[in-house]
Amino acid sequence: MGLRIMSRPCLIGLDWGTSSLRAMLIDRRGQTIEEQFRPWGVMHLPVGSFTSAYADVTSIWRTEWPDLPCLAAGMVGSRQGWIEAPYCDAPATIEMLATRLTSVPDVGMHIVPGVALRGARPDVMRGEETQVFGSLDQGKDRCIVLPGSHSKWVTMESGSITDFHTFMTGEIFAALRDHTILGTAASSEKSTEAFDRGVLAARAASGGIAPLFFSARSLVLDGQLNPSATLDYLSGLLIGDELHIARSNAKPLLIGDADLCRRYRRAMNLYEIAAEIAAPGAAAKGLWRIARAAGLIPG
Amino acid sequence: MGLRIMSRPCLIGLDWGTSSLRAMLIDRRGQTIEEQFRPWGVMHLPVGSFTSAYADVTSIWRTEWPDLPCLAAGMVGSRQGWIEAPYCDAPATIEMLATRLTSVPDVGMHIVPGVALRGARPDVMRGEETQVFGSLDQGKDRCIVLPGSHSKWVTMESGSITDFHTFMTGEIFAALRDHTILGTAASSEKSTEAFDRGVLAARAASGGIAPLFFSARSLVLDGQLNPSATLDYLSGLLIGDELHIARSNAKPLLIGDADLCRRYRRAMNLYEIAAEIAAPGAAAKGLWRIARAAGLIPG
Repeated sequence: MGLRIMSRPCLIGLDWGTSSLRAMLIDRRGQTIEEQFRPWGVMHLPVGSFTSAYADVTSIWRTEWPDLPCLAAGMVGSRQGWIEAPYCDAPATIEMLATRLTSVPDVGMHIVPGVALRGARPDVMRGEETQVFGSLDQGKDRCIVLPGSHSKWVTMESGSITDFHTFMTGEIFAALRDHTILGTAASSEKSTEAFDRGVLAARAASGGIAPLFFSARSLVLDGQLNPSATLDYLSGLLIGDELHIARSNAKPLLIGDADLCRRYRRAMNLYEIAAEIAAPGAAAKGLWRIARAAGLIPG
Repeated sequence: MGLRIMSRPCLIGLDWGTSSLRAMLIDRRGQTIEEQFRPWGVMHLPVGSFTSAYADVTSIWRTEWPDLPCLAAGMVGSRQGWIEAPYCDAPATIEMLATRLTSVPDVGMHIVPGVALRGARPDVMRGEETQVFGSLDQGKDRCIVLPGSHSKWVTMESGSITDFHTFMTGEIFAALRDHTILGTAASSEKSTEAFDRGVLAARAASGGIAPLFFSARSLVLDGQLNPSATLDYLSGLLIGDELHIARSNAKPLLIGDADLCRRYRRAMNLYEIAAEIAAPGAAAKGLWRIARAAGLIPG
C-alpha cells in the first residue's frame, strides 16, 4: 500500500500467454507497482471464461481506480484466445502496433497485435514484440533473444522489428525429456560440464543436431557421460543449435526468465559471443510504451 | 499344419524388442514356417515374467519338437531385458556374434549380442545386427537402412558391420506429434506432397532441421500449408534429415516395415538415391545364420 501512495498507476498491463496470466499495475514511468500471477494461460483457463478471469485479476485495482485503461499482449489475441487481434506484418514499429490495437467489446481492454513475417520463411510472434519494444532504451539496432518454450531471435533495425526466427527449443526439450528414452535415466542434478559439452557438440555439428539426439543415450551406455547429466547435455545441444543463427558481432540482448537467460549467456560465451541480459520489466515497459503511442495514456 | 509336414523346423527364433515379441518357427533353409506375435516388449511385459512370456509363446512348438534350439535377438539382451548379453564391438562379423551368445540358465534359450561402436561417436544396436546378417545374400558391401523408432544406418564391408549411426526419427516424430503444438492441428489424412516438401526442406537446410520445426506451424498460419498436412511435412523433415548421411552412390538396402520402407525410398528418390527394399524375413534368416555359425543347428 505504501507504493500506491508514492507512485500513481496509469495502466493495467496483462501479459497473457499460453500457460499463464501476469497482471501488472503500471506507473507513469512504465514501472510495475504491483503484480498478480495466475496459472490461467489461454490453454489453461479455469472454469468460467476469459471475462471472469479478467475480472478476477483486475477487480482489486478497478475498485480503487475505475478508469485505468488496460492493455494486454500475448496469446490472448490468438485465434485460440479471447478475441483474435490480427497480426501486424514485419517490418513493424511501435507506432504501427499502437494504431492496430484490437478492443474487447464491453470490457475496456485492448490487445496488442502479434507480428507476422511473410514470405518463403514465414514466422509469427505474440507477446514477444511487446517485450522487444520494452527494451528499446537498450538499443534500437540489435539482436534480441527471448528464450523459452518457443525461443525467438529478433532483429531490430532503427527501432523496427525487421526479421525473426522461432526455435521450439523449450517445447522440444520437454517432449524429449518426458516422452522419449532420453528422459528415463535423467535426474534433477545439474551439470554445467555436460551442458557445455552439448553446446560444443552442437557448434561442431555441420548437419544440425537431430542426428546427435541419440548420442545423449549412447554416450551414457559407452561410459562417456554420466546418466544424471543426460538432460543438461541435451539442453546444451538444443540451445547450442540456436546459436548458429547468431552473427559473431551480434551482442544479443537476452530477455526473459533469469535462469534461462544465464544459461543462454553461458552458451553464447562458448561461441565467443558477448551477450547482455536485460533488466526485468520489459513486458510492463513495452505495454506502457504502446499504450502511450496509442493515446490510451498521456504521452 | 500342412506346412509342418512339408518343411521340418530346426529353430525357434525370437525377435524380442522394446515394444513387442515375435516368435518364429524356422525351417532348415531359414524360412519362417509359423509365426506368433505378442505385444510383450521388454518394456511392456504382462503380469509375470520373461520366463512365463517365453513359455507361453514357445509351448505349442515345444510340445511337438521338445529339442528345438531357441535363439533370440533384440532388447531382451539389454540391461532392462531378461539377461544382459554383452555387446560385441564393431567391426563385427557373423562368426564373432555366434561365438559370443549369452545363454539364459535353465531355459535353453540363447541371446545374440548387440553391436557397439566405440570411440568419439559411440553407438549401439540390438536386434538390427541380426536383420543385417539376414540380408547377407543381398550384398556383403553395402549401406543398410532400418527405419523405425530408432532408425539405423549401417555400413557393411566384406560381410562385417564396420560403422553405423542411430537416428531417433520415429521416437522424435511421435513425441512432437503427441506432445507439442505441432500435433494439435494434425489429422490422419496423408499428403505425399507435404511429405516431399518436408524432405526437400531438410535437403536444403544447411544447419539441420531443428531450426525448421516451427515452420510446420508457421507455414500453416501463413496459409502456405494445409493444417491436415502438418504431420506429413514433419515426417518429411525428419526422414529427409537422415539422408544427409547417405553417399550418392550408396544404393541403400531398406529393411523393415513395408510402409515405412516405401516412405524412405520415396525420400531417397528425392535425393536422387536409388534404394532397394529387402524381401521380408530378414530377422528369421539372420537368426538361422547365426544359429548355424554357433553350431546350434547343423551347418
